[in-house]
Amino acid sequence: MTPLLKRYLETTSRRVEKTLERLLRRKPEEPESIRQAMRYSVFAGGKRLRPSLVAAAAECCGLKSSKVMKAAAALEMIHTYSLIHDDLPAMDDDDLRRGKPTNHKVFGEAMAILAGDGLLTLAFEAAAANARQANLRAGQAAELVRVIASGAGTSGMVGGQVADLQAENWRARPAFGGTAAGSAIDRRAARLLEYIHLHKTAALIVASLEAGAILAEAPPAQRRALRSYGRAIGLAFQIADDILDVVGDKKKLGKTGSDAKNKKLTYASLYGIDRAREKASALIRQAHRALTPFGSRAKPLHDLADYIIARDK
Amino acid sequence: MTPLLKRYLETTSRRVEKTLERLLRRKPEEPESIRQAMRYSVFAGGKRLRPSLVAAAAECCGLKSSKVMKAAAALEMIHTYSLIHDDLPAMDDDDLRRGKPTNHKVFGEAMAILAGDGLLTLAFEAAAANARQANLRAGQAAELVRVIASGAGTSGMVGGQVADLQAENWRARPAFGGTAAGSAIDRRAARLLEYIHLHKTAALIVASLEAGAILAEAPPAQRRALRSYGRAIGLAFQIADDILDVVGDKKKLGKTGSDAKNKKLTYASLYGIDRAREKASALIRQAHRALTPFGSRAKPLHDLADYIIARDK
Repeated sequence: MTPLLKRYLETTSRRVEKTLERLLRRKPEEPESIRQAMRYSVFAGGKRLRPSLVAAAAECCGLKSSKVMKAAAALEMIHTYSLIHDDLPAMDDDDLRRGKPTNHKVFGEAMAILAGDGLLTLAFEAAAANARQANLRAGQAAELVRVIASGAGTSGMVGGQVADLQAENWRARPAFGGTAAGSAIDRRAARLLEYIHLHKTAALIVASLEAGAILAEAPPAQRRALRSYGRAIGLAFQIADDILDVVGDKKKLGKTGSDAKNKKLTYASLYGIDRAREKASALIRQAHRALTPFGSRAKPLHDLADYIIARDK
Repeated sequence: MTPLLKRYLETTSRRVEKTLERLLRRKPEEPESIRQAMRYSVFAGGKRLRPSLVAAAAECCGLKSSKVMKAAAALEMIHTYSLIHDDLPAMDDDDLRRGKPTNHKVFGEAMAILAGDGLLTLAFEAAAANARQANLRAGQAAELVRVIASGAGTSGMVGGQVADLQAENWRARPAFGGTAAGSAIDRRAARLLEYIHLHKTAALIVASLEAGAILAEAPPAQRRALRSYGRAIGLAFQIADDILDVVGDKKKLGKTGSDAKNKKLTYASLYGIDRAREKASALIRQAHRALTPFGSRAKPLHDLADYIIARDK
């Protein structure tokens, strides 16, 4: 990570955490317990990638990042709610996240479901508050809410999560893997994998960038450029994750990857490490090209794109 | 139910169902399965009370109800998501709702959680779309989203649900019941019970009425009047439910009510049937008074208030 990007991410994290702190302060009408459960996961650490994208996109389009902090917090709350619900026993059944017990392990399943619901709802309240402050021209507050809902909902993140659940069937099949997507069945697997990542991960990343652009009242061409950038880094992010999984295993296990890994539908299992790396690099080049219209104002977004495939965790 | 109210509810139901049908048509980007799960619960029947309140409030404030159908659908989707999540094994663990298997019984727990998440998200998209169509003055689209989020979130419906979960402790205590809230412990139980119903039920009813008023660009005094009406009928609705529970049991079981019922924290168990009935009637009188500023335009809301304590299911 470049020193510049490091500083940028740290500054944005600090700022958005102040906003999250204010938004998640207990209101008189609220039971104490739910606020605690929500705060536990929101303040469990995390790179605050989505808030940084909201901030950087706004700056690209000529608006100070301090003007988009509530929307940035909204995107982080949506990300957090999705992790809480994903970790539930009925979903991925995870006990740990970032080395800490998952929300339902600490607060129970019922409270974890409600904490997720509460965060998703509060996110829209925060986004609306940001739109009101920004004093947008007619229709643009609604557009902000539409873009966030569309990135988070069944045509976006929730849709990707559903496809991921259904891909468990694929994962159990030994019929694909390592064949560079040559057969018909592997082409179907490749399409499914791309669908999952474009929706589960990229959709909310795109929504973050668009949220920044809408608040900056950016022209349509700038929004298109940011959408294209977001799609590319979202997909590259996931491919990099898949590669890290295997490489991490290699180091840890001293072998090419466990059987479980080989059976799992990932870019690494489907294309092999080398082609997966090429694919990620091509996407990052595409991301850089998409930023051309913004010139030097897009420096943080360029650095972020490079970081995504260079990171080691 | 008066013939007029019956016709009103039927007309609104038909209209909002057409809008829900359009909103819940599959988008090209969506997995088929999630849409099915969402539609299953949205079209499982139901009185469409909240949409009718959105419509009636708009009409009170001088806007045709056809102009608020997306917001009406939004409130119904939020109501439906809350039922899906409430029925989950980790929450109330119900197998049946309105005589049909609950969402998770048909689609599995993971899909039911995601169907709820999807509906909540789509609700905000629909509300935003309505605000955009209505071409509201600056800040009012954001106000619409704020009011809905606040009624649905941790200061509203989700908060009530949390308190209800925590009241399980109360319910297990034999220390109260039938003593007309005389003791200190019964006064605490009474406050808890009122908190639960004001938030779990009344908050979304109030948000429905306010949504109609905001879309009609109603002045603050009219919004206050509708809030007061909504609070009163929301609480009365729940008291009537408690009474129906006991009376229904009487008929069915041929006795005064099961032990389980007596141990449950309800208006009937806390105040006794007669005082609970008085309380509900007083609230309905209060609801009627609140509507005075609207004159004859509030006829459907007056009829609805009367129906709430007269209904038999």
